[in-house]
Amino acid sequence: MARVVVDVMLKPEILDPQGQAVQRALPRLGFEGVTDVRQGKRFELEVAGPVDESVLARVREMAETFLANTVIEDFHVHVEEEAIR
Amino acid sequence: MARVVVDVMLKPEILDPQGQAVQRALPRLGFEGVTDVRQGKRFELEVAGPVDESVLARVREMAETFLANTVIEDFHVHVEEEAIR
Repeated sequence: MARVVVDVMLKPEILDPQGQAVQRALPRLGFEGVTDVRQGKRFELEVAGPVDESVLARVREMAETFLANTVIEDFHVHVEEEAIR
Repeated sequence: MARVVVDVMLKPEILDPQGQAVQRALPRLGFEGVTDVRQGKRFELEVAGPVDESVLARVREMAETFLANTVIEDFHVHVEEEAIR
């Protein structure tokens, strides 16, 4: 069992109103020094068996066709051991 | 300028309907072998100046008080060079 993570973020040229709302709120909460905030999605996929290149290719396919809207979003796939649990 | 990433995921014991919906859809799209899917949020914060321990502590504070609902969510803070752009 391994965990494959797919990070999906809006493309840089796409306006990110959620990220901007967070960025505007931070100084009001006393947090200075953050010049930009982007908000996206993180998918953690538990995959049966070892993760080889063919499994990663399949996950990229899932991201391309289903998890990300590639017209406005970029995605990044990577293998991760047990992280946040 | 550095990028600090805050990953926010539901705690393991919390039901994740979005993740379940994705997991149920994958076999219908021809993707087998994914035993669990969890969906969360990813924040990319561009921080002015070098990222030292005090900056990371401040970002953890932002996550604790604002970016995550720590009653139902866990968060993980890490420094990341230019990744998805």
